[in-house]
Parts: sequence; C-alpha cells; structure tokens
Amino acid sequence: MKKQIDPDEFTCPLPITKHDRIQLVHGSGGQMSNDLISKLFVWAFANDELNKQDDNAILQIDCKKLSFSTDSYVVDPIFFPGGDIGDLAVNGTVNDVAMAGAIPLYLSCGFIIEEGFLLENLKKIVISMKLAASSSGVKIVTGDTKVVNKGKGDKIFINTSGIGMIKHDYKIGADCLMPDDLIIVSGTIADHGICILSKREGLSFQSPIKSDTAPVHELVQIALKVGGSSIHAFRDPTRGGVAATLNEFAQSSNVGIRIKEEFLPVSQPVRGACEILGLDPLYIANEGKMIVVVKADRAIEVLEALRLHPLGKDAVIIGDVVDEKTKLVQLITTLGTSRIVDMPVGEQLPRIC
Amino acid sequence: MKKQIDPDEFTCPLPITKHDRIQLVHGSGGQMSNDLISKLFVWAFANDELNKQDDNAILQIDCKKLSFSTDSYVVDPIFFPGGDIGDLAVNGTVNDVAMAGAIPLYLSCGFIIEEGFLLENLKKIVISMKLAASSSGVKIVTGDTKVVNKGKGDKIFINTSGIGMIKHDYKIGADCLMPDDLIIVSGTIADHGICILSKREGLSFQSPIKSDTAPVHELVQIALKVGGSSIHAFRDPTRGGVAATLNEFAQSSNVGIRIKEEFLPVSQPVRGACEILGLDPLYIANEGKMIVVVKADRAIEVLEALRLHPLGKDAVIIGDVVDEKTKLVQLITTLGTSRIVDMPVGEQLPRIC
Repeated sequence: MKKQIDPDEFTCPLPITKHDRIQLVHGSGGQMSNDLISKLFVWAFANDELNKQDDNAILQIDCKKLSFSTDSYVVDPIFFPGGDIGDLAVNGTVNDVAMAGAIPLYLSCGFIIEEGFLLENLKKIVISMKLAASSSGVKIVTGDTKVVNKGKGDKIFINTSGIGMIKHDYKIGADCLMPDDLIIVSGTIADHGICILSKREGLSFQSPIKSDTAPVHELVQIALKVGGSSIHAFRDPTRGGVAATLNEFAQSSNVGIRIKEEFLPVSQPVRGACEILGLDPLYIANEGKMIVVVKADRAIEVLEALRLHPLGKDAVIIGDVVDEKTKLVQLITTLGTSRIVDMPVGEQLPRIC
Repeated sequence: MKKQIDPDEFTCPLPITKHDRIQLVHGSGGQMSNDLISKLFVWAFANDELNKQDDNAILQIDCKKLSFSTDSYVVDPIFFPGGDIGDLAVNGTVNDVAMAGAIPLYLSCGFIIEEGFLLENLKKIVISMKLAASSSGVKIVTGDTKVVNKGKGDKIFINTSGIGMIKHDYKIGADCLMPDDLIIVSGTIADHGICILSKREGLSFQSPIKSDTAPVHELVQIALKVGGSSIHAFRDPTRGGVAATLNEFAQSSNVGIRIKEEFLPVSQPVRGACEILGLDPLYIANEGKMIVVVKADRAIEVLEALRLHPLGKDAVIIGDVVDEKTKLVQLITTLGTSRIVDMPVGEQLPRIC
C-alpha cells in the first residue's frame, strides 16, 4: 500500500516558496542550474555515484567499470550549419560518456515529437543520428517515441543516454586537479553557441559559422594513452562554456586556475560575431571540444599527440592550476591585467543544445 | 570533414511524402507506432540488439549481460490518483529493464521543464521519484535538466533510462513463445489508463480509480526462481494494453494466442468506467502489471508464487498459446463465441504515460 506523500515533510536545502517558478536560467548550466541540481536533485536522490556531479556516473558492476550518462536535446533551431539535433544528440552523449575516460558503446534514444512534425524532417534527423553513431562506433540499441499534441512541445526533443566501458585505472575527475597541472583545450571555442545564435537571430557573417558538433572520444583515448596517470580531468565545455567548466573544476578540486587570453583559440568569424553581439566566448557552448587537465610532466606529449588528430589540430595549452584556496578562475588579459572569470549566473543562450 | 547529408539517398521502408506529418497515433503503441519504429528507426539504426524490438536491449559487456532501456514520460495530468509523473517514470523504466529477467540497478533521469513551472511541484515530483527509486532498490546516478520557453513544452517531461543485471541464462523474449504455453497476467488490467482518462475528463466514480503504477521487478524474480527455463516471455502491457502485448508476442513467435474473457481480471469500477466510456480494457495501459508466458509444466507453481506477493495477489491464467501460423489473438467471450483481438490501430488515449 502506498502512503500519501507530503513533500513538506522533506526540507530540501533549496529554499522554495509557493510562488517560485522555473526560469530559463535554471537550464543554463550556470549558478542557478547548479543550485537546482545540487540542492534539489542530488539532495533527494543522494548516492555516491550522483554526488560527484560529473557529466557521467561511474558504475561498478561486478569487476567492470562503466560510464553512464544522459542528456536531453531541445536545441532551437533543429537544423543549423554543421549539424542538426540528431547528430548533436549522438555526439553530445558520446562525449559525456567519454569524459570518464570511457569507450562509448551503446546509446538509447527517446523522442518526444510534436503532433504535425514533418516526417521528412524526422527522417533527416534519424539518418543524421545513424551516421553520427556509426562514425563514433556506438550502437543505438533501445528507444522510445512519444507524441504530444500540437502546441504542447516544440517540433522535436531527443534524449540520449549512453554506456561506455572504462578500461583505465587512473583517478580522473573534476576533483582531481593539482597545482601546476596544465590546461589544454582541444580546439577553437564558442563555435556551436555562436552558430545557433546567428541562425536563430538571422545574422549572417562573411564566413558562415558552423557548429563544432563532433565526437571527441578518440581524443580522450589518445590523451589517456600518452598521458597515463598524469591525466587528471576531462570535460566537454557545453552549456556555460569554458568558464563554467573551469569554475566547476576549481570548486571541486579546491584550487585556483589561471588562463591567458592570448592563448584562447577563437576563430576569426566567431571573434567578430562575439564583438558585435557583446558576448564573451569563454561563456559560449561548445559541442565538439574537450578540456583536459594534465600534470606538467606529460602535457607537451599529450598536446602533440592531440594535434595529430583532425579534431585536435588546434589544441593549445590555455593556462595552469594554482595552489589558491580562493577557488577563483583568473584571466590574464593581453594587456597583462587580470580579471576574474565568474561562474555564469544569468541566462546567455537558452536552448543551445 | 563532414559530408552534406542528402536523406533522399536513403530509401527507408516507411513511405514518406513531402506532406506526411507525425500524428498522435504514432505514439500510441499500436500499428502506426510499430511501423514508424520498425520501418524508420530500426531500419536506420539496425543492429542485433535493437532489431529484437523488445522493451529493453540486452548488452553483452565482456562476460556480463546487462538490460538497458529508456522511456520518456509525457503523461497529462502530471498528478493523478495513485501516483504522479515522477514515480511513473521510475517504476516504468524499472519495469522495462526487469522484463529481460534483469535486476534493475541504476537509472538516469532527464528533465525537460517548461518555463514557469512551479518549483513546489517539481519538488513534489522529485520526492516521489526518490521514494519510488528507494522502494525498488535502484539508484538515480546521473541526470540532465533542460528548460524550454513557456508554450514550447507542457509543464514537465521526464526521460528515465535504466540498467539492470541479468543473472539467468534462459532464453526469454517476445519470440520465445511455444504452443501450449500458458499466459499469466499479474493482476487487474486497465487501471492506469482509466485513472488518467477519468482525471483528464473530470469524470468521477463512486469508488475512485487509482493508477496501478508500481515496480514489478520482484514478481519477475519470483517467476524466474520458480519457473526457471519454463519462463518464455515477460512484458509489462503499457501503451496499447494487453491487446498490443499479445499481438506482438504472436507476431514475433509466429503462433496464435487464445484468451478467455471470463478470466480477464478487471476491477468493478474499471469495468463500469469502460462500459460508460465505450472502451475495451484489453486496449488500456497498465503501469504495474506484467504478463508472463510459462510452459504449462510450471505454470501453476509460478501462479501460486506470484499470488504470495502483494503485487501479484490477483494473478491469473488468462489463456494459452496455440500452434497457428495465422498469428491471431482470439478472445473466447463469456457467451462461448470468439472474436479477434486486433493490434490497436487508432489512438485510444494520447499522453497516457
């Protein structure tokens, strides 16, 4: 027999009044997302795997270590230069699974489709998923389809969940950074976010800006092979951009991080668009990049190895980890001054992924 | 470098014209859902695991066998007698995972929330998920939260994906039915669907009709323990009801199925509601029931064991499998006549789960 639940019996650390409502910013990947996640979801579901709050959970099933991750994709527009919601949904979860140092193997796929959606567009998306899965070597093995009445959804939302196998025994995670570690980013930043925003706002630039949606699991395996136990963390800087990732690293590892503006790889068109739109590329979502934190002793070897892969050819070291309990991320500007790179608070770009 | 995709290069078995659109019936669990799944999704993603089209995929990772399943929940209303979208999302995926004879272990959880949704209601749902997970012994280990603009979603949609461990070595599946097998249903049918419909339409009955949302993984383990290799199939008859499940069994196993109307367990209030609404309980969704197909030699023992569990106390044998290549499901009525129980084609109840 089920007991009547009185949610008021449970006092969660997130203060909630009768009138509080979900805002777009709760989904932005910034401070308010983090509060909602840690003070409601993680508080309620509390367990060792979830408490880490990485992009994936590491599961121990008998002697096997698996990486398990989920993401729902609500990107608008659903078709954009460089990709669509289909390959984004496959690559995004492949990347989240891979960030544990895992080899992605299997995906599930749940569609929520709005009544009236063109079947032709569904086919386009499904084929894009098929091609993305095959180029990542993952299999889409189980799925679900729901249809909601017209006006109760928005074209199509896709959830993918993924399972990968972890074969290494290194300790890798947001809480594993050590002073003097170096921070590598695998290529130019802010491409995906600026692509979506441009398309949405109907902006056009001389050279069209394409989403960077791509699977980075091969880069992960290259870094692991070359860096071994000197690899301390992987993360794909999606919502909230590089700024959110570095702030989460600093918080979790109780260290400071310094990055140099002159080292940040930003393509010329993206830099131009950011200037026009008044946006900081550090806060803009990426969908085919990874940040890897490596002990200095292997950083150059890892960097060189990454650059040999087409998706890592623009990899650079952007900064280092410092022994500073303030847990601040600092940017040293091209002028030599320094400013703090905060955790994003407000909503920059809703429905970016 | 990515190639431009021309989806027209791919000819899928589902005929699609420029004007064809997704209809509610594509999500109903009936014939049009099945066509969309098999002629578009399974065709595109084709692999051995998916091709089986069970509610879960069975994964072989080294020597371990895992069950993996996903479901998105879009039920409307989100709160209803007997449960809410939260425990429905946990129990539903626990059940799908369990249908492979697996012990459910881990869930992921992806929220798509409409801007303006009351945080108080989100908390209520999260606590309901917490309690459901803890009573099933599963851990919610990873998650994702997206927020969509007001009017671009409907309150809240939840995806859960689940992983379970398979410890048995029996061959169990929709394609494993054999002539003379008996068909057991674990309790009264149609409760969930009629509950949702009544709540949605504002109908009230003398005795309120509650959803049967519940985890049936313990029933699965009981059946396996008692039935051993005589267990041929498990399925939770959700969208499309018992009718859809039995038709899928008959198709996959290339057999006929006979059920007896007088044996069908339907509670008095549900029977009354079905009569008033002109609905056939065989086609209505259940969320806490399972159908188990057992070789006759162990059927009585399995039935008796199920009845000792609170969720199986109303378990009954409703019919048997016959050697008939017509693959028809037949109902023998209380009058002794027989009628064919078709695969549901039209939409009975949208957004039932």
